[in-house]
Amino acid sequence: MFKLHKALEEKIHVTELPTSIIKFEHQYKACPWLLVIPKIENKGNFTDLTLEEQQKLMVEVALASEVMEELFRPDRLNIAMIGNKTPQLHVHVICRYENDPNWPDTIWNKSVEPMSKREAETMVTQIKALFAEKYYG
Amino acid sequence: MFKLHKALEEKIHVTELPTSIIKFEHQYKACPWLLVIPKIENKGNFTDLTLEEQQKLMVEVALASEVMEELFRPDRLNIAMIGNKTPQLHVHVICRYENDPNWPDTIWNKSVEPMSKREAETMVTQIKALFAEKYYG
Repeated sequence: MFKLHKALEEKIHVTELPTSIIKFEHQYKACPWLLVIPKIENKGNFTDLTLEEQQKLMVEVALASEVMEELFRPDRLNIAMIGNKTPQLHVHVICRYENDPNWPDTIWNKSVEPMSKREAETMVTQIKALFAEKYYG
Repeated sequence: MFKLHKALEEKIHVTELPTSIIKFEHQYKACPWLLVIPKIENKGNFTDLTLEEQQKLMVEVALASEVMEELFRPDRLNIAMIGNKTPQLHVHVICRYENDPNWPDTIWNKSVEPMSKREAETMVTQIKALFAEKYYG
């Protein structure tokens, strides 16, 4: 049965879509950041998914990207599947700005300041509302 | 008309598929690394593609991933669209190993030793052959 990895379970819940669970990563104050986690057992790499699962996942990654672009107007979206530390397949969708502290490097180049719980919750409320509108509306 | 960004043009050519050009990045000695670049004008973010273009691109990213997995048996594949420095949309497909110098961090966390031209060319020959087999075979 599908079960979220502990490191992903701990993140703030945003919404659940047909193929994935969406979580919010508050680790980088300057950059709103989602995690898109396919609800499929024992998957680590993208190529562990069937073609159909890959396509369904990427449709939801694109939806998550559109939500973030519409709300937070990034200069660039970084989309990445890394999973070196957390082996369960998950896709990072990160808003980047030309004036954010790590620009133009990745958010992984150096340590970054996290958001406060309150900032994160405010963003998550906005994100939830836009997912509801785009997905069910 | 579609034109490769100079920074991508300079990379070692591997092959051309219906939707993308595949290049080899020799920047990290420990980790064979491909770039999958959709041949579509003026695209920066994944969401700038139509759904059909997204799906065609990801089919070729999965093919590139399979080629790299089969040849180089990574412990983990990192797949990422960053584009902060090179604005033309391109997808990194990077073989990672639990004993590579940056593990478990991303390859972007610290500077890495590049491959020699000869090592890179040997790998590119193998990669070309397997693409030809998988794609045309």
